Formats: sequence, structure tokens, C-alpha cells
Amino acid sequence: MKTADLMITGAHLLTMEGKGVGYIPDGAIAITGSTIAAAGPTSEITRHFTAHRTIDGTGKIVMPGFIDAHMHTGLTLIRGVAQDMNDWMQKGIWPFARHLTTEDKKLGSMVNIIEGLQAGTTTFGDYNDHMPTLAENYERIGARAVVTEMVNEMPETIAELEVGDLYPFDTAVGEEKRQRNVELLEKYPFREKGRIVALSGPQGPDMMSLELLKDMQNLAEEHGTKLHMHVAQGDREIGQMEKRYGKRSIPFLEEHGFLNDRLLAVHLTEAKDEETATVAKSGAGLIYCAGSIGIIDGLVPPMLTFLENGGRACLGSDQAPGNNCNQMFNEMKMAALLNKVKRKSPTVFNATLALRSATIEGARVLGLENEIGSLSPGKKADVIVIDGEQPSLFPVLTDPIRNIVPNLVYSARGHEVEMSIIDGTIVMEDRQIQTVDAKEAVQKAQKAADDLSVRAADDLKKADSDILEMVREGML
Amino acid sequence: MKTADLMITGAHLLTMEGKGVGYIPDGAIAITGSTIAAAGPTSEITRHFTAHRTIDGTGKIVMPGFIDAHMHTGLTLIRGVAQDMNDWMQKGIWPFARHLTTEDKKLGSMVNIIEGLQAGTTTFGDYNDHMPTLAENYERIGARAVVTEMVNEMPETIAELEVGDLYPFDTAVGEEKRQRNVELLEKYPFREKGRIVALSGPQGPDMMSLELLKDMQNLAEEHGTKLHMHVAQGDREIGQMEKRYGKRSIPFLEEHGFLNDRLLAVHLTEAKDEETATVAKSGAGLIYCAGSIGIIDGLVPPMLTFLENGGRACLGSDQAPGNNCNQMFNEMKMAALLNKVKRKSPTVFNATLALRSATIEGARVLGLENEIGSLSPGKKADVIVIDGEQPSLFPVLTDPIRNIVPNLVYSARGHEVEMSIIDGTIVMEDRQIQTVDAKEAVQKAQKAADDLSVRAADDLKKADSDILEMVREGML
Repeated sequence: MKTADLMITGAHLLTMEGKGVGYIPDGAIAITGSTIAAAGPTSEITRHFTAHRTIDGTGKIVMPGFIDAHMHTGLTLIRGVAQDMNDWMQKGIWPFARHLTTEDKKLGSMVNIIEGLQAGTTTFGDYNDHMPTLAENYERIGARAVVTEMVNEMPETIAELEVGDLYPFDTAVGEEKRQRNVELLEKYPFREKGRIVALSGPQGPDMMSLELLKDMQNLAEEHGTKLHMHVAQGDREIGQMEKRYGKRSIPFLEEHGFLNDRLLAVHLTEAKDEETATVAKSGAGLIYCAGSIGIIDGLVPPMLTFLENGGRACLGSDQAPGNNCNQMFNEMKMAALLNKVKRKSPTVFNATLALRSATIEGARVLGLENEIGSLSPGKKADVIVIDGEQPSLFPVLTDPIRNIVPNLVYSARGHEVEMSIIDGTIVMEDRQIQTVDAKEAVQKAQKAADDLSVRAADDLKKADSDILEMVREGML
Repeated sequence: MKTADLMITGAHLLTMEGKGVGYIPDGAIAITGSTIAAAGPTSEITRHFTAHRTIDGTGKIVMPGFIDAHMHTGLTLIRGVAQDMNDWMQKGIWPFARHLTTEDKKLGSMVNIIEGLQAGTTTFGDYNDHMPTLAENYERIGARAVVTEMVNEMPETIAELEVGDLYPFDTAVGEEKRQRNVELLEKYPFREKGRIVALSGPQGPDMMSLELLKDMQNLAEEHGTKLHMHVAQGDREIGQMEKRYGKRSIPFLEEHGFLNDRLLAVHLTEAKDEETATVAKSGAGLIYCAGSIGIIDGLVPPMLTFLENGGRACLGSDQAPGNNCNQMFNEMKMAALLNKVKRKSPTVFNATLALRSATIEGARVLGLENEIGSLSPGKKADVIVIDGEQPSLFPVLTDPIRNIVPNLVYSARGHEVEMSIIDGTIVMEDRQIQTVDAKEAVQKAQKAADDLSVRAADDLKKADSDILEMVREGML
């Protein structure tokens, strides 16, 4: 008989092992230190384990925590300021973004992390300017994070360009950001697979010189990590690439040796079918941000085409001023629904694919499949407990039809998650985050947001966006 | 100085009056009995009113409760049993539905009502078989309801037909259901505009004889109420109409005088553009069920085309085994996103249209615009209080960009609603429903669902649906 630190018994287990969801009725999990010691039928687990603390999981659903592979939590202070409009980045985001201080980003980021945690996200794929500072939030709150500095060579004056102008590059800007990415890579080595690991982060092929882009790839190779990059994310990017190089993004990246299993390609919104196939076949992973691209562009990126070409894909919630929420229940439902509608078929994207894309496939895309993504002995104990007696999950049926997965994906909203265990530590219990004061975090960040609105007011008026017009007319 | 029963002060008020959302900063509302006595700036309201109870609304968003214009709460016992599959109704729903007792429907319905209430729905447009029994739930829980008996002439053996066979009609079935609709109309007269009112409910033009259809319209006229009917809801319906009458649904209804402002047309999924225009111009209202039709069919019904032709439209959440959730935060986001994607444009369906479609436009479509849908003196006090300090609504900005409405529509999930006032009575406070024991309702209904699964097992195996195959293969 072994003694685990924590055991949950009698639950509906979704291990996410195998091809489906790895359902085990009356299942149990034992956790020792930061690791899953065992997962299986309760009768079997309790034959081999006792525990310092045992939680009765009757009526609960126990599964791996969600992996949100692509977020920009540093933009949370401007959630909801750029919706339902054209020229989202240029007229919506930039007039605010240039006034965001690093401290602003850190305060907003904490609220965003809390939002995700409260809805079952345990791994945050966070991609920001000044990421070493923002990463302190993850150290404090105790969440798993895959952190990337967002590296580009774009000067601050970018907000003053006309839509469509070719971006000027500033090597000093690039060098400073690259240095921060190096700092991250050294502090959170990907090879060590700690609770926080770092990736190399060229923001996009359009946003830096080819020289720096190659250098970022060298950095990734040197540190044995992934290259996390927006690829074909919008017509804006394609326009820049064609103007600068006479090539679309994907042929350009292929020519210069960027398409391989080191690449995490984000979005592919503007990729043609044959370009999508090229990326998929190269071994690169795709991070699909369903809600964000749906709202910002009214488009459905080619995740299904990517999968059909043998690619590996997962989900990300992107940034608050564009999605606008950051939690995986939204992403799963959006991914399934938007693809059903894209192909006019109810069967093309099912709940199982959605749930896998938010768990085990996320782990695989990030290169962390030996650490997270399923309830498998030896993996890190990133586990969530969901209250199956919430009305939105009612009823829980198991035979002959088992409806747990469809109801998690299509009906649950996030508040059903009552406990989050990360790296073996209970970070949320009874829906209360244990490591930070959530209310205080919101209130502190709200003050910063109020100040930001004052500082950005002139630039916002100058940008004269659709949304400002709507406010003026009393429509918002 | 007048004395109100209840006053909420210092809140962000979304009155939903005027063309937009009727935003009032630092706003207050006074409620006397079941009625809104006043709504406006706090300074003005407190000059004229004191109250028996005053709630500090600082940091809260106060708005009219949501109107869910079309639901089938009687099917909640089978939530999640028919997703991601073909022949949804025939192979997914019917094998279960024939075993659902009236008591089953009532137990499931209560859980569904609780789910909606907890997410801010105050008016439930409920459409069921045996509605007089289900309506008792609304009496007990204290919610507003617009109730309709689902009348058809389809025998119980319908589940045994092959997909595509013409339905036989059974006049005895029709007469029994019609009688229940009459009972509803007499018990809850629409003209009296009480907390519960009844509509006339032919289930669809394909599901009964023309004779009964005309009779249902006569009933509606006699009782001064609306005719609530599924129209062009799927290729299944169009196929039946063409086989039986040699006509598609909308030309058939036009020919026989059903297209007018008495009609609440639900779905129009299969309507051609010119048919949609015909219905819109007739004065009939449209209830658009974004999530349900997206999941069941992978389609986006023509709400925008309907509006462009001068029609009036609102939102409904339809049934649990098809959406699968029943709350308006989901419907608002789905309606906006699916239409953006349908038209490949971020601006075609904005957050304001979504919020209006879930409040004031719902009232107009239902013919209750003088009673509900906005915070206007003299209207019924159906009011919700939303916690603006929840991370998902962070930050709340008001100047120069006001982001409350985008964040309600695109980020909020439902749990942000902390208080619900219906007909002047606080039905939910601190997220706890005051009138029924929510946990007990779920547990009682779960037992019934377990029993149902046993009774339906043979029919489910016979139907051999896609979802059963997925369960067998361990995919669910």
C-alpha cells in the first residue's frame, strides 16, 4: 500500500488517453508530489493507495486541466474596446496599446489568468511584450505557463502609419525584445520542463527582418524549444509580405526553412488550402483561435484542412480585446460550431475533437505530451474537478448514450469547474483561488484601466474608429 | 417624496430604451409592487424616491432580464444525447422522446428554468407537449413565461417510420393536444398580460392537417394572441410539405393566409432569400435559435436578411438536446459570431444588436413591448443585476470607449448575474434562487433521467445512431 498526497475517488474520469476521451466510470486518481501516481477504476486505485487527503468525487467529472496554447494576457486592460469594427489592430488596438505600461500589462494579465483558472485552464500559452515581468504572475498564482516574448522590430510610431503602409523596422527595438526572449529562455529552460517553460517568439514574418527571424529560429534550436509565430494571420500580414518580399507568408517561410516540427504556427487565417497542407505536412503545429478570429475577422481558419493533411492542431483564446474571453469552454464550443457552419455539416467537428484539442492535442502541439494533457501515471498532476450537478451539465447519463462530453463542450460555461490542481498543488478549491486575492486583483487593475483610458483619449479620438462612433451615437 | 419597495442606485444602467442600449451612468431604478416606478440618473431618482430596501449598485450593471423567446424545456432530461450526428430528430430525439412521461418533462423543465434564471433569463418562451403541467413550474419558481402547447397530429409510432416517409396524421392526437392549448389560453389569457400568458402552438405546417392549422389560427385570433410555429425549420419539413402539398412551407402558408403579424415564425432555416423577405414584409416576427441550428444542422438561419427586409427578430435557445444550453449569453454570442462568419465580416452583427435581440426586440416579437424588454416606468419590473467586478467583465470603461456591451455579449458567461427580479419580486439573490431548492431539483430530475435511459435502451440500440457508435468506440 502506497500513500499518496491526494486522492479523488468515485468520479467520472476523462483521462484523455487513447483515441477518444478515455472514460472510466467510478474512477479515481492518486497524486504524489507534483505527479500523477495512478489513475483508474476506484476499486483498483484504492487497493494500492491510501492518501493524506481523499476527496469524494461522486457526481464529479475529473479530467486534465485545459491547455490554452495561445494568449496575449498583457492586453486584458483593453478588453472590449475594439469589437464589431474594421481595422481592428490599427484603429482599435494600437491607439490604446502604445499607452500600456509594463505594469499595466502585468495587472491586466493577472485578471486574465484568474479568468482562465476559474474556468479550468491550467496551462497558459502566454505571448507578450515584457513577458519576463508578466511571468511573475504565473510564479505567484501557481499556474503552468508556456511563455514567449513577442519579438518584432516595429517602432512605437507604428500607430501613426496609414493602413497599408509598409512597416519600417527598428533594429534597436528588435534587439531589446530579443534580449528579453533570451532572458526568458535562460530563466525557464524548455528542456527542464519545469512549471514554466519558454519558447522563442518572432511575432510574425511581416514584423521583423529576415535576419532577426533566422536568429529567433537559431535561438529556438539552441534552447531545444519551439518557435511560436503568427503565420498568415490576416490580409494585413499578407499585404506586408507581398510588398516587402513579393511573396505570401507561407511560401516565404518554406523557402527560408521555417516549416518544420519546431514551428507553432498560429492562426493560418489567410492560408490557401495548398499552403495549409504544406504547413501541416511539414510537421509544424497549428494553434487555432476560433473565437478571436471569428470576432475580429468573421473568418474560420483552416483547422479541419490542417488535420485532414495529417497536421496536429490545438486551441488558443488569443487576446481579451478580440475574443473577448479567455477560457477554453468558449474555444471548444466556438471551434466546433464555427466549423460545422463553415462546412454546413453537424458532424465535421465533434465534441470529442474539441475536448481533445483543448487538452492532449494542446500538449502535443506544445511539445509537452510527456508532461501534461492526460491523466497518465508519471505526468504532472494538472487536474480539474467539475461539478456534475450544475444545471448546465444535467443530466449525466452513461448508458447506452454517454452525454458528458457533449455537455461539457456545448453546455458548460466554466463556473462548473470547482477545483484546479496544478503541478500537484490545489490552486483553486470551492471555486476560490487559493494563491491570490482575485477581487483585489480586479480592483487594482480597474484603477490602471481607468488611468489608461485618460492617457489614450487623444489617440482614440484621432483614430476615429467605428466603435467610437457607436459610443457617440448612444449605441453602446 | 414617494416610497418605492426596492431601489438600486449608483449602477451602470442599460435601459434598452431608444435605438441603442440606453446607457445611463450612475443610474438608479425604483420598483413599486410589480412595476418599474422610475429609472434614470441616481441623483434624479433619489430626489423623488426613498425605498423600503435600497441596494448599492456601485460597480454593477443593471438591465432588463433576458427574454428567451423559444425553448422546449420539456426535453431537458435528454440534454446531450443527440449531438454531432445526422438525422438528429429521427435517430437522436425520438427514440428517447417516446419514453418521456409528463412527469419526466416537468422535472427536466425545472432544471432548465433554473439554468436560464441563473444566467439572467426572466421571460421563458416555453413550447411543449403537456404545457399546462409544465407551466406549474413557472407558477412555483416565479419566472415570467410565455407558454405554448405544442400541437400536432403525429402518432407516437412516428419513431418507427423510415427517414423521409410521409407522416401519417391522427386526428385524435391533434384534438387532445388542441384541448390542452385551449386550457392554457383560458388559464393564462394573453390579453390580461399576467406573469404567465399563452400562445397558440401549431408545431409546424408539416405536422398537422391544414384543417387543424386553420383552427389553431382561429384560436389565436379568438384569444387575441400569437401563433407560435416552426416554419421552414429543416429539409425534413420542406420534404414533407412538397410530398403532401407540392409546395414549400412559406408559399403554402402565404396561400392560406398565415403570414401576418400574428405569426411568430421560428427558425426559417431552409427559407430562400425571397421567402425570408416575404415573411419579414408580412409583419410576422422571427425567432432565431443560433446555437441550436448551428449544432443540429451546421447552418445559420437568415436573421440578417429578415431584418434587412424590415422584419422584427429576436433570439431563442431552443431545446437542451440540441443547443445544448439554455441561456442568452450563449445565444447572443452565437448569433453575432455565426452571422459574422456567414457574411465574412466583423461588423454585420454587433453586440448592440445581440443585446437588443435578447431584450427589447424579444418583447416586441412576442407582443409584450408594453410590459417588458426595457427599464421604462410603468413596465413590469423584470430586472437583472450583473457583477461588473467579475474577471470576465473586466475592465469596465466608459470614456471615450464604452466597453460594457461588447463584454456582456462576447465575454460574460452567465454566472456574472447575481440578482434577478421578476414582476417586482427578487427570485434570485447572491446567485441563489429564492423560490425553489436548485440542488434538490437537479437530484430529483437526475433519478428520472437514469430511469429513462433504461426504458429507452432498446429503442436507442435499434436506432443505431452515430452517437451510439461513438460511445461504443470509446470516443465519448
